[in-house]
This record gives sequence, structure tokens and C-alpha cells, in this order.
Amino acid sequence: MVTEVALIAIRPGEGPAFEAAVAQAAPVFRAARGCLGMSLERTVEQPELYRLVVRWATLEDHTVHFRGSEGFQQWRALAGPYFASAPEVRHVVEISRYFG
Amino acid sequence: MVTEVALIAIRPGEGPAFEAAVAQAAPVFRAARGCLGMSLERTVEQPELYRLVVRWATLEDHTVHFRGSEGFQQWRALAGPYFASAPEVRHVVEISRYFG
Repeated sequence: MVTEVALIAIRPGEGPAFEAAVAQAAPVFRAARGCLGMSLERTVEQPELYRLVVRWATLEDHTVHFRGSEGFQQWRALAGPYFASAPEVRHVVEISRYFG
Repeated sequence: MVTEVALIAIRPGEGPAFEAAVAQAAPVFRAARGCLGMSLERTVEQPELYRLVVRWATLEDHTVHFRGSEGFQQWRALAGPYFASAPEVRHVVEISRYFG
């Protein structure tokens, strides 16, 4: 399993509209091949910086299958208008969970 | 609840030693006031970039109580020698979990 972490800076004041767009796009992710979970986080220090966290069965489920799909176009059509800049995307794997 | 996300770039080749240091420091976090969980993630695209993810009951449990504690000094003594640069720390709160 791999976790996509997309840092998304949005245009000032667009928080509620962006959050609504993400909620609207959630079924698109849910239907995507290998998509295992999705959540949205907001940065305390910089409220217009969000983190979209999406868990995928494999890296390629995101980078190849999803990005090449119509679902990706739908996601960008819904949320893209609120982006202040191109999202910064990383993939991470959990090495250890110590407690909690 | 607030999640601390520390991006930690380590010195080349020091992955195993850094991971061992984090494991050794885990009990220090576990004993800290308001510390609810801790995990270590590694970036796929940049294997020497880790994310330490620590869940805290409140922001101040991290920024005031932990950073002012002897535990913080112990953590830095254990893991600090492997840092390539100062960690980049953010705090995030979960807005929505859509599924998974």
C-alpha cells in the first residue's frame, strides 16, 4: 500500500468551495481502481494549504491508472479552479507504527 | 486532535541508523503529555526524505510541552545526528475522512 500526499494551496477565501468540491469528487476516487481511502487535512499554520491524503493499493494505481482515467479529469474539473498553484504530490510508505 | 508532520531529510546512507534512532526514541514520545500516536513514513520518490507523523491531543502538547521537555532533548540527541537539514514541521487537522 502506498499513500499519496498532495499538498494543495488554494486561492484565498476559497476554503469552503474547495472543501465542497473535494466532497463532490470523493465518489470518483472511491470508484477508482485500487483506491483504498481518502481524507482531507488542513494545515494549522497556513489555513489555505490543504493535504489530500489518498491510499492506493499500488503506486501505479495512482500514477498510471488514475491519472490516465476520466476520473482524474473529473477531479481536476471539480477542484482545479480553486488551486492557487500546481499541487505538490509525494507518495509515502509507512515504515513503522510505534503506537497509537 | 492535531497531527504533527515533520519532513526529515537525512544524510545519504543513514536510513537504517535513523530508523533505529526513531525506534529508540518512540518510548520518549509515548511518555509525553498528550502524545497519542507515532509513525514513520518514507517517501517513494526521495528515499532519504522521511515523514515523522505524531498525533497530539492539542497543538500545545507538541509546541509548548514537548518542545520544552527533556524528552525533546533526548529525541534530538538520538535522531539529530542523521538530519541533513532542519526538519520542516507542519501541523494538520483532519477536515473529512470520506472513506477507507
